[in-house]
Amino acid sequence: MQSQIEKSSSMQLEPNKHPDRDMIVVALGGNAILKPGENGTFAEQMDNIRHTAAQLATLISNGKRLIITHGNGPQVGRIFQQQELGFRAGLPEMPLYICGAMSQAQIGIMIQQALHNELILAGCPRTVVTLICQTLVDPQSKAFSDPTKPIGSFYSEAAAQKAMAEKGETWKEDSGRGWRRVVPSPEPLAFPEIEAIKALIARDIIVIVSGGGGTPVARSSRGILAGVDAVVEKDLAAQAVARITGAGTLLILTDVTGARINYRTPEEQMIGRVSLKEIKEYHRQGHFIPGSMGPKVLAAIRFVEDGGNMAVITSLENALPGAEGKVGTVITR
Amino acid sequence: MQSQIEKSSSMQLEPNKHPDRDMIVVALGGNAILKPGENGTFAEQMDNIRHTAAQLATLISNGKRLIITHGNGPQVGRIFQQQELGFRAGLPEMPLYICGAMSQAQIGIMIQQALHNELILAGCPRTVVTLICQTLVDPQSKAFSDPTKPIGSFYSEAAAQKAMAEKGETWKEDSGRGWRRVVPSPEPLAFPEIEAIKALIARDIIVIVSGGGGTPVARSSRGILAGVDAVVEKDLAAQAVARITGAGTLLILTDVTGARINYRTPEEQMIGRVSLKEIKEYHRQGHFIPGSMGPKVLAAIRFVEDGGNMAVITSLENALPGAEGKVGTVITR
Repeated sequence: MQSQIEKSSSMQLEPNKHPDRDMIVVALGGNAILKPGENGTFAEQMDNIRHTAAQLATLISNGKRLIITHGNGPQVGRIFQQQELGFRAGLPEMPLYICGAMSQAQIGIMIQQALHNELILAGCPRTVVTLICQTLVDPQSKAFSDPTKPIGSFYSEAAAQKAMAEKGETWKEDSGRGWRRVVPSPEPLAFPEIEAIKALIARDIIVIVSGGGGTPVARSSRGILAGVDAVVEKDLAAQAVARITGAGTLLILTDVTGARINYRTPEEQMIGRVSLKEIKEYHRQGHFIPGSMGPKVLAAIRFVEDGGNMAVITSLENALPGAEGKVGTVITR
Repeated sequence: MQSQIEKSSSMQLEPNKHPDRDMIVVALGGNAILKPGENGTFAEQMDNIRHTAAQLATLISNGKRLIITHGNGPQVGRIFQQQELGFRAGLPEMPLYICGAMSQAQIGIMIQQALHNELILAGCPRTVVTLICQTLVDPQSKAFSDPTKPIGSFYSEAAAQKAMAEKGETWKEDSGRGWRRVVPSPEPLAFPEIEAIKALIARDIIVIVSGGGGTPVARSSRGILAGVDAVVEKDLAAQAVARITGAGTLLILTDVTGARINYRTPEEQMIGRVSLKEIKEYHRQGHFIPGSMGPKVLAAIRFVEDGGNMAVITSLENALPGAEGKVGTVITR
């Protein structure tokens, strides 16, 4: 885990030398859009997003400047399922990274509209816009030799073997529940469209960007970009966006009030205000679940280590006190 | 038809008083992305888009500043089909306007990446980015009382009657080929995210926006936006974007070298350089097919009438001479 943290220093990003205290990158977890147990109808998602937007509007009406990123797991999973059904009916498929871009627009337009509306209701109207952006990754990195991120539905071993043989995909058996396709989960290295993000925030426009970690691309020696089927952890992408835009705070909103040590044991305990050194030690000890709280804590560590003022992990309902560092897991230098 | 043209004066848009000669809004027709007869695989679309991007890169390396809009008919149709298959398998559906936003990202990310690459190959690298934007329409307008735009697949009368009864949709029988859902095709009135478009073009960033006419929304008296199931003609949206950004040229690229009078008759003749007065007369006489060349000519007329320098309708291959007004149907004041 220590090596994962150190990797951040090899990122092709400018250092965060003068972080802006009032600029916050908000990373919205899946529950901000779709709650566990919901079927995921448009009405359900729009209701959740309206609630989320109201929390974000409170931050903005309190003088904060936001850049918004979000998860997309269930949504891109559904687009994938719909594509698979279409494929069986003779309709061509799009690669994963195009489906990811589609999910960014699907979720982005809902957040954009809901936040626009909540800001009017809060008496501070703003322009809110979704940018479809690419995230540069390194196809030579270790993530590509050992894909770990499961996507799409569960299938039989026969179907998995067929996809591996015919499409060169990687599939893995998943705890007796069947076979799933797995894709690499590489580090975010840079954002080809970063100048667009900077131009918009300079005009006080609220940008929704890098949903689901953004659209992963590789770059040739000449600078030519090509999409790759991979999924960048959205919290790590949020951290990289925060660092490169000079945001002072990284606010990771999820469904729990904070990170916990000794999770699901009698000694379970929420981490409140914590030093960088201390949480790095907890991370090293393996207290945080990979693919869940793990990347959130890693993103928070990297952000503060790279010069950010404060990283906070808390629940959506605690957005306002969280942004002030008054609740949740709060990491400062 | 005359009344359609006059409608433009009621648009909630700023006049184009000092059009910028080197700024061009390019409206890409469906053939720039997917050619008739193709199945629409990712490889086919990416090949077409690479070719399109090479044409656009030539314009940019010749000193033109571009804003790009595009059609989305086949793509949003396919998303709709995939959703319908999903719905039968128990997966919730998204409304049409969300599917439209998804198609904007699907097509936008391909154009964005391909144009980025072609600009590097042409030796003039630029930032290219897709914005997911809304297009304001008036739900009280006549377009909503008489929906005309067919979307999705053909169905049986029984299926159509069911959808009309259960979902309140409008369906029409289509020339003996079956029943299709029809939606309103309202006028574009304004763009809620226009400040984002302006901020980006001011920094010389190439924006892909209002694909498929943009995401149609209605606005309440308080200013609250809500999506509506409708399709704005992409050429009319392109004209409105051109007018509001002060572009000097509207370049409509399609699969023919220009608009024709007496189409499909022995007297068929391509229109070359033409006065505003003359083409308005042709339009009034009904020479242009509604939903096809009709909205292109209408967009061109409105653009020049509203103060634009030049509107050109020509083929994708003629992009460069077209932008100079040397080929195609060229309308000037």
